[in-house]
Amino acid sequence: MKFTINRNQFIKKISNVQRAISTKTTIPILTGIKLELSQEGLTITGSDVDISIQTFISVSDADNELHIENTGAIVLPARFFNEIIKKLPGEQFTLNVVENNQTIIKSGKTEFTINGLDANSYPRLPEVESNEKLSISAEMLRQLVDETVFSASKQENRPILTGLHLKISAEKLLGVATDSHRLAQRIVKVNNQSDNDYDIVVPARSLKELEHCLIEDNSEIKISISENQILFEFQNTLFYSRLLEGNYPGTDRLIPTSSDTQLTFDAKSLLQSVERASLLSHASRNNVVRLAIDVNASKVTLYGNSPEVGTVEENLTTEALSGADLEISFNPDYLKEALQAFGDTKIEVEFTSALHPFTLKPSDNKENFIQLITPVRTF
Amino acid sequence: MKFTINRNQFIKKISNVQRAISTKTTIPILTGIKLELSQEGLTITGSDVDISIQTFISVSDADNELHIENTGAIVLPARFFNEIIKKLPGEQFTLNVVENNQTIIKSGKTEFTINGLDANSYPRLPEVESNEKLSISAEMLRQLVDETVFSASKQENRPILTGLHLKISAEKLLGVATDSHRLAQRIVKVNNQSDNDYDIVVPARSLKELEHCLIEDNSEIKISISENQILFEFQNTLFYSRLLEGNYPGTDRLIPTSSDTQLTFDAKSLLQSVERASLLSHASRNNVVRLAIDVNASKVTLYGNSPEVGTVEENLTTEALSGADLEISFNPDYLKEALQAFGDTKIEVEFTSALHPFTLKPSDNKENFIQLITPVRTF
Repeated sequence: MKFTINRNQFIKKISNVQRAISTKTTIPILTGIKLELSQEGLTITGSDVDISIQTFISVSDADNELHIENTGAIVLPARFFNEIIKKLPGEQFTLNVVENNQTIIKSGKTEFTINGLDANSYPRLPEVESNEKLSISAEMLRQLVDETVFSASKQENRPILTGLHLKISAEKLLGVATDSHRLAQRIVKVNNQSDNDYDIVVPARSLKELEHCLIEDNSEIKISISENQILFEFQNTLFYSRLLEGNYPGTDRLIPTSSDTQLTFDAKSLLQSVERASLLSHASRNNVVRLAIDVNASKVTLYGNSPEVGTVEENLTTEALSGADLEISFNPDYLKEALQAFGDTKIEVEFTSALHPFTLKPSDNKENFIQLITPVRTF
Repeated sequence: MKFTINRNQFIKKISNVQRAISTKTTIPILTGIKLELSQEGLTITGSDVDISIQTFISVSDADNELHIENTGAIVLPARFFNEIIKKLPGEQFTLNVVENNQTIIKSGKTEFTINGLDANSYPRLPEVESNEKLSISAEMLRQLVDETVFSASKQENRPILTGLHLKISAEKLLGVATDSHRLAQRIVKVNNQSDNDYDIVVPARSLKELEHCLIEDNSEIKISISENQILFEFQNTLFYSRLLEGNYPGTDRLIPTSSDTQLTFDAKSLLQSVERASLLSHASRNNVVRLAIDVNASKVTLYGNSPEVGTVEENLTTEALSGADLEISFNPDYLKEALQAFGDTKIEVEFTSALHPFTLKPSDNKENFIQLITPVRTF
């Protein structure tokens, strides 16, 4: 195997594949990156078993300046290979596999000789039959992930909650994540021309990595789903993730259908108030803030305190308030993350009682985006 | 004590003082920041015993929007105070010390009540008699620090080597740092109108903090030196550091006066070569690279290797070479840091033998800046 390639193009193309490669894997060959050269181009693969990413650099795209001398395959230590390529002096480099998987990388007046591994020992990618019938725009997918995955559980004691629950019907994709203290549910448009509905749970970590891969992408992403794998296809790249096994708990019944107190806020200014209040709650053992709503006096106050440091009192500006008076306590970090997901918009916050979850929805998209926070009992 | 002040001006003014405050101190009151209000303005002090920084916000500077209601003093928990002030909503804030050192901070619709400490318990600053006769430009001082302190020892087994040795005579300041493996010596101009010469050792850490305080400063810095303290005065700020006790070892005799092999390099391109070679030496147990100089063939090669990962061979571009052939091995990180201190310039590297230290000097300033690296015996 021997080829010459444009160094910057190559660096760009392998950056996604690098995301799948973990230094912490227990399978030594997976710390490597696999290069496979055919007459058509170079296929590059990285995997940590949970996620596998494969990208293709075509010989027919002139920007790649890919010149093939002879085909073959090799696995190289990913971290070193990446650093070496980044620091090479020339605009191009030549990679040549000689005997015993020794690989010579030349650029300018620099020559590296790296110990490679036999590509035949590299595990096979999962088999997922490619489906032409299910797709979503990269932007929609990014939004869905951004607005929900932070609510997935970070603890492994209930593995199913570390994933995002996806329900796909004719034209609708519903994503919901909960760590049992808060929940985020988002509905986006999907293009489903198959006869199937889907009900799957994708690890939150996979979706976060996928989101990074899609940062500058505005294309349509093809999705294929098998028994235990999901495959996303975009721009010469295949992104595989395993699915989580088990039944996701029913979340519909958690979302209240009526409310007793209703407030409207500017999300950004509420976020700033919560950030200030949490400065002190973070210094206290039980990270809790208290919200007091006095409807007649039109007064909404957020209190934070730390016995050691002191107290804070925030008079909140509401755009509207109605219903019954209320005092409620909760973890300010859940509210912060919920508000960050809304961005710069008006939101409606609805309460039933001091011990029931309250909901947050953007005023202009109440049906498709809802977040829920469980209060903390303080008495 | 009660005053109102422009929030952004205040944040700017306390940022230097914050540098002196450590969260790791064993003296609880030193985790605080001291505010002292007189009719002239607000004096702010931070200290970790080794370094003390004091700055003054004058009532006569209209930008500060400082309005004094009544004078007094308080110590507030520095980390919280800093975060609180940064996150307050208004352009100004009011600070009011009420009973029991409770301090109310108001801005917009936000009100914090913070538990302060009695300012009388705050330790006194060191006494250093202010001297009008010794000064240096901020730029010179920054350069001196930048170009030498990285060579000071990071280990505490010989405390004196964790400092920068400063020798001040009539118009010359010589600074030298060594960790016994490498050495950096720089001579800069100083304005010394006193009759005294000085020979002191300042902790490297103090000078790094001082350098940060001076980043945007182009003024003349006044220096005063006492038995065990040094005081730098600039822009309404007093920066105190303790001096290290003990005799700094003689370093003059370490610097070779003749050489057998001479090379001239572009410092930046040599740095890139060393960075590549060190990619592999870092993966090896004894982080060493080997330089082979063949004068007749005009060939200079840098070798790095890691038994696990592989080898690298760099053919170096020299601007000139003369003298005897040589093979020498050394820690590439010392060469990297030395080259980073030179920046983008031509340098002369001079060797005597494989077991003797070699020197590096910028071609355009050979008398005032010299670095020395001790080789590693590999046989």
